[in-house]
Amino acid sequence: MKLNYLMPVRILMGENCLFAERQLLAQLGKKALIVTGSNSARICGAYNDAVKALEANGQLHVLYDKVMANPTDICVYEAGIKAKTEGCDFILGCGGGSPMDAAKAAAVLAVNDISKEELFGAAFDRALPLALIPTTAGTGSETTPYSILTDTTGSADKTPMKRSVNSPLLFPRFAFLDAGYTKRLNRNTTINTAIDALTHAVEGMLCLRANYLSDMLAKDAITMIMDCMEDLLAFPAENPTAFPVKKREKLLLASSIAGMVIAQTGTALPHSMGYLPTINWGTDHGRANGLFMKSFLSWCREKEQGSTDRRIPALAAALGMEPERFFDMLELLLEPREKAAETELQAWSKLPMKNAANTYIKPEQEDIARIFRESLG
Amino acid sequence: MKLNYLMPVRILMGENCLFAERQLLAQLGKKALIVTGSNSARICGAYNDAVKALEANGQLHVLYDKVMANPTDICVYEAGIKAKTEGCDFILGCGGGSPMDAAKAAAVLAVNDISKEELFGAAFDRALPLALIPTTAGTGSETTPYSILTDTTGSADKTPMKRSVNSPLLFPRFAFLDAGYTKRLNRNTTINTAIDALTHAVEGMLCLRANYLSDMLAKDAITMIMDCMEDLLAFPAENPTAFPVKKREKLLLASSIAGMVIAQTGTALPHSMGYLPTINWGTDHGRANGLFMKSFLSWCREKEQGSTDRRIPALAAALGMEPERFFDMLELLLEPREKAAETELQAWSKLPMKNAANTYIKPEQEDIARIFRESLG
Repeated sequence: MKLNYLMPVRILMGENCLFAERQLLAQLGKKALIVTGSNSARICGAYNDAVKALEANGQLHVLYDKVMANPTDICVYEAGIKAKTEGCDFILGCGGGSPMDAAKAAAVLAVNDISKEELFGAAFDRALPLALIPTTAGTGSETTPYSILTDTTGSADKTPMKRSVNSPLLFPRFAFLDAGYTKRLNRNTTINTAIDALTHAVEGMLCLRANYLSDMLAKDAITMIMDCMEDLLAFPAENPTAFPVKKREKLLLASSIAGMVIAQTGTALPHSMGYLPTINWGTDHGRANGLFMKSFLSWCREKEQGSTDRRIPALAAALGMEPERFFDMLELLLEPREKAAETELQAWSKLPMKNAANTYIKPEQEDIARIFRESLG
Repeated sequence: MKLNYLMPVRILMGENCLFAERQLLAQLGKKALIVTGSNSARICGAYNDAVKALEANGQLHVLYDKVMANPTDICVYEAGIKAKTEGCDFILGCGGGSPMDAAKAAAVLAVNDISKEELFGAAFDRALPLALIPTTAGTGSETTPYSILTDTTGSADKTPMKRSVNSPLLFPRFAFLDAGYTKRLNRNTTINTAIDALTHAVEGMLCLRANYLSDMLAKDAITMIMDCMEDLLAFPAENPTAFPVKKREKLLLASSIAGMVIAQTGTALPHSMGYLPTINWGTDHGRANGLFMKSFLSWCREKEQGSTDRRIPALAAALGMEPERFFDMLELLLEPREKAAETELQAWSKLPMKNAANTYIKPEQEDIARIFRESLG
């Protein structure tokens, strides 16, 4: 049994936990840069609560609220420079995965001179202290050491690519989980983020780096999310607040636990494939991963036959059902599916997939082509 | 759902992980105080491995090997002074719960001036960096912020009492889990430490501070330990190394996970009661807690009837069996039971129990008397 586990984040969870536990924020510094998107953190109340908590602590703050979905390197440099020029000594990231990932990168860029060309893979040994406030239940960024960004400069032909900055310094000091911030999320966002968390846990079980503890946490996260499946399928589209708050809480904690999984394991093939519909079509990240699940898991099951490393049975046990029944449920959440043009299928199938090497069965390019075609053809 | 979770320890697990990951030790400082007992860490090889790793790193070390079972305040001051006078800048604790708890206290006392009268409850804001190497699978000290010591000065009549020093600074930076160190443990130690870990997880589910995440981890730890129950019952007394290594690994990781539980929840009534046979008769800590399980859990089940806060069904589900069957198994591990004299029963039943207030059903003194009598009468 081998293990290398680290998840040093203090997780606070509960209604109004940000204000109630504001003395923790007081430990972080004198002046915060609040990193967020233009809208959602304001609408859900998280931004206001953050400002209230900081003001009650007598802490200053400035705002960077230009984080877009799938934040670019350009955006995080802007945030990092703002932190530097405003003399901020800590970062408060507030929103879904995009603002949280941008906040992490800003915490690094505020105190390191790293060129855009060197950001991905740069070595650094300090970052501003960081607290994160998720307002969706999917990314798990609050419990991972990763910042996933859109690299606009790195690839030879300047095609934007999703790449990651990895460092234990990107773990926030504190994560504040208040399901109240998620209770107005609409059907699409609720489902797509739940699928994101679910794919983190599922892929975590199928990574080379999976271990006993990551599997245990993955199974727990999967159980929690599957326990919300009926409610997700029956999502009250006209009135999101009718979605049970207890299930919102469960999804939120499950997404943090799924983050604890991928903090150990990384992600598997579907996450690499999912970046293509996201970058090219703007498909939500969680949904994009979900689109490949059925074909990917079917392929895994086929390939692992006869191997000593069979993982689909344990996954099915965690799901509490046979894969086919799970695929049917997932399809109901995803339908209607996007279709790729033949030219896209062919082009995407030729691209190298970073996570292929981290998947417990290494896919050949022809396997990847097949999964693209089965999923989007 | 409320939560306040912190477990910042990096856990390394695997055969020879201490030497393989020695570069982590290199981060801690230039000169280590190795804190251990007189024997067991040497016999199992952990001490040698620690010395080899430090020497390979070019780090100096001095040894404090006088930690006794149930270490006293006197002992930890001695270790703390040794660290100070020898100019050690980090601590390496190596052994069962006693050396690890002593190492934690030494890390504090090496850099703080705290009088013996003030040790329990003292405020401090620094401690030497710390790494822990468990050589038994029970205490979970490597994942908790507690140091449990025998207070020889604190009580009015100078009766030694078990008391704790609590601080997030007592979490080690690293925990090295190598089940190889546990493979020669005899029947008594293997069983008593397994019971210790099991009672941590069981009591964690029955604490006022239990939460969703602590329950999840507790159930995982209980499942892992119960999965070793058959092997524990059939322990090969003549040849401890015939106990399956895979089960040694499972027990070791389970004990760390049970530590993650009590790091959140604290412990419940049995841990307070267990200190009495330990202090007075020298009963092993894990065994001492185990002695009270049957009566305590039966009492819980009786008292929770009609309450909305019923926890025994979830515990039975985690155990994978009805409590009666569990009690029978536990009895086989414990037999023959110690018996207390009538004077002891009467005296102990009158003592205040610190953890009573942290138990989900607050026991009255008469309940405590009943559990003592049923367990040791």
